[in-house]
Amino acid sequence: MHYISICVFLLTLSTMSHSQTPARDLGIHIGVIPTGKHNAITDVGNVQVGQVTVREGQNIRTGVTVIVPDTGNLFQHKIPAAIYVGNGFGKLAGSTQVQELGNLETPIALTNTLNVSTAMDALIEYTLNQPGNEKAQSVNALVGETNDGYLNDIRGRHVNKAHVLQAIKNAKSGPVEEGCVGAGTGTVCFGFKGGIGTASRKFPAELGGYTVGVLVQSNFGGVLEINGAPVGQELKQYYLSEYFKDKADGSCMIVVATDAPLDSRNLERLAKRAMLGLGKTGGIASNGSGDYVIAFSTATELRVKHETKDLTQTLTVLRNDAMSGLFMAAIEATEEAILNSLFQATTTEGKDGHKIEALPLDKVLPILKKYNKKVKNEK
Amino acid sequence: MHYISICVFLLTLSTMSHSQTPARDLGIHIGVIPTGKHNAITDVGNVQVGQVTVREGQNIRTGVTVIVPDTGNLFQHKIPAAIYVGNGFGKLAGSTQVQELGNLETPIALTNTLNVSTAMDALIEYTLNQPGNEKAQSVNALVGETNDGYLNDIRGRHVNKAHVLQAIKNAKSGPVEEGCVGAGTGTVCFGFKGGIGTASRKFPAELGGYTVGVLVQSNFGGVLEINGAPVGQELKQYYLSEYFKDKADGSCMIVVATDAPLDSRNLERLAKRAMLGLGKTGGIASNGSGDYVIAFSTATELRVKHETKDLTQTLTVLRNDAMSGLFMAAIEATEEAILNSLFQATTTEGKDGHKIEALPLDKVLPILKKYNKKVKNEK
Amino acid sequence: MHYISICVFLLTLSTMSHSQTPARDLGIHIGVIPTGKHNAITDVGNVQVGQVTVREGQNIRTGVTVIVPDTGNLFQHKIPAAIYVGNGFGKLAGSTQVQELGNLETPIALTNTLNVSTAMDALIEYTLNQPGNEKAQSVNALVGETNDGYLNDIRGRHVNKAHVLQAIKNAKSGPVEEGCVGAGTGTVCFGFKGGIGTASRKFPAELGGYTVGVLVQSNFGGVLEINGAPVGQELKQYYLSEYFKDKADGSCMIVVATDAPLDSRNLERLAKRAMLGLGKTGGIASNGSGDYVIAFSTATELRVKHETKDLTQTLTVLRNDAMSGLFMAAIEATEEAILNSLFQATTTEGKDGHKIEALPLDKVLPILKKYNKKVKNEK
Amino acid sequence: MHYISICVFLLTLSTMSHSQTPARDLGIHIGVIPTGKHNAITDVGNVQVGQVTVREGQNIRTGVTVIVPDTGNLFQHKIPAAIYVGNGFGKLAGSTQVQELGNLETPIALTNTLNVSTAMDALIEYTLNQPGNEKAQSVNALVGETNDGYLNDIRGRHVNKAHVLQAIKNAKSGPVEEGCVGAGTGTVCFGFKGGIGTASRKFPAELGGYTVGVLVQSNFGGVLEINGAPVGQELKQYYLSEYFKDKADGSCMIVVATDAPLDSRNLERLAKRAMLGLGKTGGIASNGSGDYVIAFSTATELRVKHETKDLTQTLTVLRNDAMSGLFMAAIEATEEAILNSLFQATTTEGKDGHKIEALPLDKVLPILKKYNKKVKNEK
Repeated sequence: MHYISICVFLLTLSTMSHSQTPARDLGIHIGVIPTGKHNAITDVGNVQVGQVTVREGQNIRTGVTVIVPDTGNLFQHKIPAAIYVGNGFGKLAGSTQVQELGNLETPIALTNTLNVSTAMDALIEYTLNQPGNEKAQSVNALVGETNDGYLNDIRGRHVNKAHVLQAIKNAKSGPVEEGCVGAGTGTVCFGFKGGIGTASRKFPAELGGYTVGVLVQSNFGGVLEINGAPVGQELKQYYLSEYFKDKADGSCMIVVATDAPLDSRNLERLAKRAMLGLGKTGGIASNGSGDYVIAFSTATELRVKHETKDLTQTLTVLRNDAMSGLFMAAIEATEEAILNSLFQATTTEGKDGHKIEALPLDKVLPILKKYNKKVKNEK
Repeated sequence: MHYISICVFLLTLSTMSHSQTPARDLGIHIGVIPTGKHNAITDVGNVQVGQVTVREGQNIRTGVTVIVPDTGNLFQHKIPAAIYVGNGFGKLAGSTQVQELGNLETPIALTNTLNVSTAMDALIEYTLNQPGNEKAQSVNALVGETNDGYLNDIRGRHVNKAHVLQAIKNAKSGPVEEGCVGAGTGTVCFGFKGGIGTASRKFPAELGGYTVGVLVQSNFGGVLEINGAPVGQELKQYYLSEYFKDKADGSCMIVVATDAPLDSRNLERLAKRAMLGLGKTGGIASNGSGDYVIAFSTATELRVKHETKDLTQTLTVLRNDAMSGLFMAAIEATEEAILNSLFQATTTEGKDGHKIEALPLDKVLPILKKYNKKVKNEK
Repeated sequence: MHYISICVFLLTLSTMSHSQTPARDLGIHIGVIPTGKHNAITDVGNVQVGQVTVREGQNIRTGVTVIVPDTGNLFQHKIPAAIYVGNGFGKLAGSTQVQELGNLETPIALTNTLNVSTAMDALIEYTLNQPGNEKAQSVNALVGETNDGYLNDIRGRHVNKAHVLQAIKNAKSGPVEEGCVGAGTGTVCFGFKGGIGTASRKFPAELGGYTVGVLVQSNFGGVLEINGAPVGQELKQYYLSEYFKDKADGSCMIVVATDAPLDSRNLERLAKRAMLGLGKTGGIASNGSGDYVIAFSTATELRVKHETKDLTQTLTVLRNDAMSGLFMAAIEATEEAILNSLFQATTTEGKDGHKIEALPLDKVLPILKKYNKKVKNEK
Repeated sequence: MHYISICVFLLTLSTMSHSQTPARDLGIHIGVIPTGKHNAITDVGNVQVGQVTVREGQNIRTGVTVIVPDTGNLFQHKIPAAIYVGNGFGKLAGSTQVQELGNLETPIALTNTLNVSTAMDALIEYTLNQPGNEKAQSVNALVGETNDGYLNDIRGRHVNKAHVLQAIKNAKSGPVEEGCVGAGTGTVCFGFKGGIGTASRKFPAELGGYTVGVLVQSNFGGVLEINGAPVGQELKQYYLSEYFKDKADGSCMIVVATDAPLDSRNLERLAKRAMLGLGKTGGIASNGSGDYVIAFSTATELRVKHETKDLTQTLTVLRNDAMSGLFMAAIEATEEAILNSLFQATTTEGKDGHKIEALPLDKVLPILKKYNKKVKNEK
């Protein structure tokens, strides 16, 4: 089949293109809380990530990234979830049901703006066909997007249903490929190549032992700061600068996962904090930026059965006053995930010969040094 | 083409099936404000409605209804709009951008739950292909739904892109076909056959002369009241009754149009009132009901240009304290639109031999008489 | 003390003035669900209501009504709660904390618009002084209001702290005084004398056995309907009628209590439904109407401890799909509570000789008869 | 009168205590947009600030700060306004009406948590007594707070009505006193003494020439960063650090003023961005933090008349796509205002001998130097 050959092709390509390095490996330490094992959203419970990069010819630079909150049948055992709209200039599908019912019943797909309907279509088909869902007549597919139209022939709508289904099949635990991959293949962030990024924070046992993981699809602007160093200003490349006519638009999709037992109200509060992490990278949530945060809890005992004769459910949830540490973790992990999306991305040429440079390490690392923002030598 | 033959077939069918009558022609007068010319959403500005009914074999009873807020290129001249979520157990696509930016850039499509992605797909394609939109790289398609899965093989997802595009082509001013048509082909309301309904209210010139029009896709439950007469109770058919095991679920999509110059804040307030009209028919916005209200203004001077060099826009908007009459109009028109969806629908057999009776006029009209709720004799 | 003499005076007065009758005793049966024992909000758990009527001379017609969700120290054991803003033209104090944290830590006070600060002051003092709260440094007082300025010298701000504290002391279970009492002393509803009203619904054990109780402070307009009979139209007294120049403004405060174990998300959904009950009386939530619904659950196991070393709390909550019956109960009880506020109120003269007639039973009962809306003979 | 003597006393005191310096005078330049003349909220239109510090004996460290959006009668000519709730664990009074109607009709008062009712009381009295408001029967007082209970005998509720009225009288344009003054007298921020801070940004004419001004009452925690330098970490004083057991709670009130012609929808979006500025100082919007942003526009032509016979109003408003620069300005000004609140505050002893140190310049300036975060030498 056509799409499989694409994938093979791309796996090759992406291996080639990911010569860059996570921020932390460059000595950039964001915040004060320790990371999880892989410093990735997959450090949380059984969260899995699957991606398909769609990169063909000169003009097609797009893809899909799927976050699977847990193995098993999500529709039959729904996941507590919430959504916070940082800036609603975007096409997130499925938001109102998550907000009303406080749960999520499909994987989360991220793709380009004009293929949201395609990814919905695929998630619906996937769910209807899952064993056990033979009687399902309603599916709330959750799909986010950012606009990769500068590098990608977005009007061609090149993500198809097979790509999305393949991304679900690709989903796995462990390290997550970052940068120009999946839904991040064609995105642009602070005028540099953005993409997929991830990070996590894990509390020591005496503080609850909970993990918070974040995955972003970065495609926005502002005045880039890296761990507090004014990189955008030093490079004279920022929103409203004389030399940089970017509109700071784009968008950022942020997915926050935690194994802390949070109900939807506290998940929404957690989601809200992720925007502060975006702000710390210099993002301004510009008018044209569709900035959405989806948060969910993998705590098994909070699963909501699709059907049961029980009127009630017994659950153990975190108290409001135990939330602050998780808030800080979400901020830190979001900031680092965005930086990773930049540090892991590579220079990309695409539609109509448009070219977006990767973050220029040769210039950036000296700036970080100037501001004393690295804790060890660069590689 | 296949879908054209379907349409022809359906036009025939629907002519046959619409032997029923609008509520008002039966002497049922809702509220105190006069109706517009057609007592339809199309009484507002240039609003047009287009429908395609998809009715094939024994099991397919679905369709699509499109509301086109105005002629011309909506994407280039966006329409002030707002959305109110009465109960968010539904799949409305496009809501967050309308809420953030306060405007609408595509027609509104209504269909069944599992074809929302199909209708998005079609609206995106339609907009990308509209002359003047050659550079458009982002389209916020607004698509609502209710679940017709009792009468329709909803898992088969029988609405396709061509149906939606045809519905847009079908869009016209003047009288609107109601009942078992378009997105209302397979819906159920209060245990009877529901469907598409519409109504309008027009103020005399001394009260501003504004018109409010409503179109509904009715598919919900509760305890049916018709103009205050307790029809559900008299028929012993209502939510929680001994004889009626319906879950009162379903959904109601409500579209409110007005030519009053309302900004998005006051459109949201107007949208909120439509739910009171739903309540007056006995609807309870049950847990499973996705009840959404989309409101827009056709006031020409409030159009928002997609692109312009101007930083500002000058507009004349209605003051807060001139809103109350419009609120009342939205309530009345919603109540009447829902009743019309019932009175105009016909008994329908569908999937797996399921059959939903039309509102039984032989029983209902005597009840209305008993409660003195008709102002003239029935036909 | 001064205020005690006022109270004594008022108790006398109010005994005199309450010659009217609850709607149900006149044969008006709203909805299909049975009432609780007293058909009052006090049918729920240990809910208590306390009122002080402030009625002096010609010009003072106001007061305070306090709803105490439970006996004991609410601050130390907070109550799950939510707020829905039907129309925000009002001065509800304390709303954002209830919405953020999902709980309530003081009694709820209702009073006139310009004395909200007074009632806050009193609730803060009350809470600081409660045994066990010696270390409390933050109190979220929840105070609602409607505007009684037509009958009451509202600018004189005649409710004082002692009145509010006395109302808390007066709080008791059992039957609730309705009509021109407490915060309802000077309110106007549909152009007639409004006031305090209450009602409840209790499910049979096989449907969960839960109770929903509602208390309203009615002060709004529209087109009065009584159990579906078009009383406003028959009396030619309604918003926008030729004979009736009322602005339909005012407000309605609605308090919904239940013993069902609802978390704050489902309490907010319950609160939303109360507005449908308001709609069924003919209310339109006019521009000037501050329509707020406060909902809380008395379920003991859902209490939130002010302080504890536990990070988590275990709770048993109702599932989303068990909510619909409660929604219907909230609608029915709200409709009936509003009608009771009208049927129980008496003709009142007040400020500057303004006079508002009680609902004229001699005219209303024949109208109800005409529309077959009474199930037994009037008294 | 008693309170006047307090004020005199305090003016003396505050002159003594304000030996510290705004961040910018220390060479700390936040962001890229130029400041307004005074780098204060008073750079916007006719905005005035008035403060009364209540500092008596050992235990009383509190006060009130009033922001007057414009001279003249605000009640008769309301100001477009919006509120964003960053974290709702606070007692902001007046929020729902601002959100519903999109405007503001009183000055904004900030004080301590338990004196919100006092400030409401004063604003109501002030408004009722303003010439021209003789018929006013409804006043929506907007009052925010943070909790100064560590340094202040907050349970004593020492702010009285006269203090608030005096603060309104004190309101003036020009430089704004910062630090331990007014509502900031007893607040604590990142474990150091916080208080009142302000800053502004002014665009060059070719970018619209608009000004954005911010005033904060800082009383929150997290991990302090100063212009990107990790001061909290270097000082080992931050939320969750071994050495610092602070709960990071508190609150931050943020007031954003602009002369850009923004309607309430875009003001709400502007308000939302202020939280990103808070995030950049290391704030985490902890569970216990009541973080609210009030935004208003002083654009004269957007004033809303309290009463008029006109049904409509004509206004010129900024387009959505002209908002991004203002968003960035709000972020920058909020960050700098918070830093100013810290740099201007002085070590304060208060209740029960509690003592909070001012930001230790001797330690902080070297840290800023280490991270190359000053553009000129310290004083």
